[in-house]
Amino acid sequence: MIETPYLLFLGDAPDSLAAKVAQGIKDWRPGNCVGQFRLEGCKADLGLPDMDLAEAREAGAKTLVIGVANRGGVIGPAWKKVLVNALEEGFDLASGLHNLLRDEPDLVAVAEATGRALHDVRVPEVEYPIADGVKRSGKRVLAVGTDCSVGKMYTTLAVDAALREKGAKSSFRATGQTGILITGEGVPLDAVIADFMAGSIEWLTPDNDPDHWDVIEGQGSLYHVSYSGVTLALIHGGQPDALILCHEPTRTHLRGLPGYGLSSLEDLRDLSLQMARIANPGCQVVGVSINTQHLSEDEARAYCAEVEGRMGLPTVDPYRHGADRLADALLAM
Amino acid sequence: MIETPYLLFLGDAPDSLAAKVAQGIKDWRPGNCVGQFRLEGCKADLGLPDMDLAEAREAGAKTLVIGVANRGGVIGPAWKKVLVNALEEGFDLASGLHNLLRDEPDLVAVAEATGRALHDVRVPEVEYPIADGVKRSGKRVLAVGTDCSVGKMYTTLAVDAALREKGAKSSFRATGQTGILITGEGVPLDAVIADFMAGSIEWLTPDNDPDHWDVIEGQGSLYHVSYSGVTLALIHGGQPDALILCHEPTRTHLRGLPGYGLSSLEDLRDLSLQMARIANPGCQVVGVSINTQHLSEDEARAYCAEVEGRMGLPTVDPYRHGADRLADALLAM
Repeated sequence: MIETPYLLFLGDAPDSLAAKVAQGIKDWRPGNCVGQFRLEGCKADLGLPDMDLAEAREAGAKTLVIGVANRGGVIGPAWKKVLVNALEEGFDLASGLHNLLRDEPDLVAVAEATGRALHDVRVPEVEYPIADGVKRSGKRVLAVGTDCSVGKMYTTLAVDAALREKGAKSSFRATGQTGILITGEGVPLDAVIADFMAGSIEWLTPDNDPDHWDVIEGQGSLYHVSYSGVTLALIHGGQPDALILCHEPTRTHLRGLPGYGLSSLEDLRDLSLQMARIANPGCQVVGVSINTQHLSEDEARAYCAEVEGRMGLPTVDPYRHGADRLADALLAM
Repeated sequence: MIETPYLLFLGDAPDSLAAKVAQGIKDWRPGNCVGQFRLEGCKADLGLPDMDLAEAREAGAKTLVIGVANRGGVIGPAWKKVLVNALEEGFDLASGLHNLLRDEPDLVAVAEATGRALHDVRVPEVEYPIADGVKRSGKRVLAVGTDCSVGKMYTTLAVDAALREKGAKSSFRATGQTGILITGEGVPLDAVIADFMAGSIEWLTPDNDPDHWDVIEGQGSLYHVSYSGVTLALIHGGQPDALILCHEPTRTHLRGLPGYGLSSLEDLRDLSLQMARIANPGCQVVGVSINTQHLSEDEARAYCAEVEGRMGLPTVDPYRHGADRLADALLAM
């Protein structure tokens, strides 16, 4: 669990895309962000107050979160100076970088001396159990996709927000590094040891109030041969009551797999349901989320309407149209 | 890769079941075993020559393999003395124990001083790649089961042996610790990091001669919610041309999951094929392996005949009836 609120470190981000992790935190948990810290030459701007470390501490920030991708995979001297100073000022550090904080001897030494924590969200910090498959109380919804990177995280964050806005009990359950930084907790599923994958998701989504929704971030795809095992562990560990199908309609082949075409939404529905019902026989598909970023507004509306007519399920792009109808479908279950 | 041949360490095994790893090595790779090393009170006997360390070295043994489960999960002083002496005598050590050799400071120090290797087969020794899904040359067959522990390792070892006896090119590909100790190499799939599971199986079963068979040891079951993700990674990383269905007919629920009944062989066939064809559209189910250990000879024959008639697939218990018909089915493809 990462302590909030955060000071978001944007470093020397060459453009706003490089700071997309910070952008995600600011978009979805603005209350967790007291300000941004930028180095000279930084081209990203979240519109948060620029603060130095002392100002941010004064404003209540507990953790400096690295919200930017670093160049070349190493933490350079300019960053290092800020990180060491932050520890000295009393901040914990949190990072999703490949270059782990814990692999930097100076950061480890200073963190130890100052009693601060280094959170590498790429690496599990918990010993997860083996899944036991026992039915848990509360409700769960999981996003599944025809491919990786089709908007499963965005969809689940939007559904969680829409449920809360309607006064429903909901928790976004992060299963990837960006999601973990956004909420301050979760399971970095891609880094979990094989035998404990499903168990880590049971741990992430424990017994809860009967009317509480865990909105579980999806990973990979049952059709993506590189990561399908991760996806199935998520389906069986999450034992979802509801699935949301996610799709990006302009993709010509699976991400990173040029020889693999995309499955239809119908195939995804049938295969995902068959798999999910092994763990939860009552599971239903409640809606479709289309990532229309490469379509015009008209094309997007037409595409969603076509899918909705064909499949008989509420179909939206939550980024363009909001996730209200998906949340309504869950609440109507 | 563990150097062969082996001296098999049976320790103070209280019965032959405790030495079943050693028994498996002796049954399937007798040529890898020069002898057995037993402590006082050992109740197991593989029928191999009893040797001390010097005799075994003289006979050519390169590695002392711990072929017995230890009590209480710790390596006691009586064992430790033998292991240290073995390193001093020039043996490598290999073990599938939970208590890792590498976690014993004295063994690490002596191994370093003597230049010997400590092989903990529970832990990957390779940095596996992410799977790329590219079609590989050569043929592959994978065992899939209605449950864990239904005879998938035994089936694939028997099929590999039958293929070789028929003069076919075949390699047993181990995916679990006992299989790795038997063959001296393999992937401990249950201990691989989630993102690299499928890639580890691609690594294990690389391009090969067009008429060569990789006979891949199965793990878990698509229906077993604790481990199904591991199974799917094996199916997608292995991209099998052929599947053998494995089943134990007297089981009343999935192993460790009292609430979960067993699927039918027909359901297993359909779901496994659907999954396998994502990676290899030509995949076929070629036969059924029944673990009849809890049936009488008559019951076993009747059960296999019934399944064979129902499913139209050669159906045998390879332990009772041999794996010839399964190997023939592969060679007829």
